Amino acid sequence: MRIIQLQTKVSRDKWENLYSLRTQMKAAITKAVSSDGIRPDLITVGEMFACPYETACFPAYAEEEGGPAWRFLSELAAECEVCLSAGSVPEIAEGHIYNTAYVFDRDGRQLARHRKMHLFDIDVKGGQHFRESDTLTAGREVTVFDTDFGRVGLCICFDCRFPELIRLMVLEGARLILVPAAFNTTTGPAHWEVMFRSRAVDNQCFMVGTSVARDETASYHAWGHSLTVSPWGTILSEMDASEAAAVIDIDLSETDRIRGELPLLSARREDVYQLRMSHEK
Amino acid sequence: MRIIQLQTKVSRDKWENLYSLRTQMKAAITKAVSSDGIRPDLITVGEMFACPYETACFPAYAEEEGGPAWRFLSELAAECEVCLSAGSVPEIAEGHIYNTAYVFDRDGRQLARHRKMHLFDIDVKGGQHFRESDTLTAGREVTVFDTDFGRVGLCICFDCRFPELIRLMVLEGARLILVPAAFNTTTGPAHWEVMFRSRAVDNQCFMVGTSVARDETASYHAWGHSLTVSPWGTILSEMDASEAAAVIDIDLSETDRIRGELPLLSARREDVYQLRMSHEK
Repeated sequence: MRIIQLQTKVSRDKWENLYSLRTQMKAAITKAVSSDGIRPDLITVGEMFACPYETACFPAYAEEEGGPAWRFLSELAAECEVCLSAGSVPEIAEGHIYNTAYVFDRDGRQLARHRKMHLFDIDVKGGQHFRESDTLTAGREVTVFDTDFGRVGLCICFDCRFPELIRLMVLEGARLILVPAAFNTTTGPAHWEVMFRSRAVDNQCFMVGTSVARDETASYHAWGHSLTVSPWGTILSEMDASEAAAVIDIDLSETDRIRGELPLLSARREDVYQLRMSHEK
Repeated sequence: MRIIQLQTKVSRDKWENLYSLRTQMKAAITKAVSSDGIRPDLITVGEMFACPYETACFPAYAEEEGGPAWRFLSELAAECEVCLSAGSVPEIAEGHIYNTAYVFDRDGRQLARHRKMHLFDIDVKGGQHFRESDTLTAGREVTVFDTDFGRVGLCICFDCRFPELIRLMVLEGARLILVPAAFNTTTGPAHWEVMFRSRAVDNQCFMVGTSVARDETASYHAWGHSLTVSPWGTILSEMDASEAAAVIDIDLSETDRIRGELPLLSARREDVYQLRMSHEK
């Protein structure tokens, strides 16, 4: 299957961001097709790609599911006939604001919705400070869904810090995990690669982390470095911090081969420890 | 606190290996003390440091807990007045052979015993093949213990592949995880560093991986590369494949600082997922 990751710049104008995404998506698809005739199956975008990453902006930019931005993204997937992991956007529902990732199929139908489950509240001395929980509410669903190309897991940025969540998605059958994200210039150089590589190695799945591009004039400096990692932990593609597109061809059956050679999933000691959803008995 | 990691060569003679360990321990302590007057608190050794890493050797070299090799190691800890994580040795108990790691305190008392819980059965096409389960029985205890310098977790090599086990040790209070190990020249270059770095980052603890040295004439080519990683994921020390000693000074309170800045343990969503021992309700 073919993935195109789009690492886009974020302006303060929501609709400028959305129209720019459309332009970049079409350009990237055209370029891929004109080079070898192969269309992408999946396009991925970064966290909060249409809203500045500032706690005050989340309520101001939020829309309901099915709102104008949602409809634009749904139509964009249908227009381009591609599965679209449309990064994340601020969502409002029953008075709460969520950091929400939608995925649309090639007909524009919503395949999945993930509300960020671990809010990003950090305070590194001499480094990054941020408190998503000032304006956001956390989701509580583990998100796994089926596509034409296989079973996929979805979480957002800080969610990926928690090995339990990725493990749960993989135990439910995910072979590819999508992570719209926006690490920063403190945590990015220290942890971005090692996190994606280790999640891929431990779970023997493909990991696709898609960031927004860095904007030095913004209050939050995204790390960028969108990347795709194989189930053996090999980095198949990694960008720098600039606006860019990457085309990556992967074979999801590679997960089966790796899981056969190195039995990291089947050799788990469920007789000793168990990882479960809390609502399960 | 001061750690000395000893990456030792393994000959086919058990007692040659044990006496060589004593010589190397004393030399390393003397060298450290003569350089700045500071004695080590902890000495670590690699997996199966006194037995060739071959399934047929495990039963042949095995002894009971309290046997001659055990007594030698206990006396060595007392003689050197140091906590000794004595790598691992084949243990026989009630007709079963285990890959067992003992830790002795500075008086030679056994502080901990860990029996490898995940046996190393792999078959990488064109790479490493090995089946520990041909002769070994797996343990079933998570091993955490208290020392003069703080609470410590202990597991062996392939055990560390399973994020659940490390997480359980850290949730029980471990701030330093000891991993006697022997990766090989297939998995070592691909996964050794990323595994130790990610366990340290995810769990905000120190990770100490101690390998045996590589012997190109042996049937199993150990990766070596004994390393210590900080709770921020920084490699504080890493060897190459040769026989060597490394002196590393760490401050376990760094775990508290990192856990305060980046709340990866407290922000776990226990209302959504739970990791538990299977015997717990």
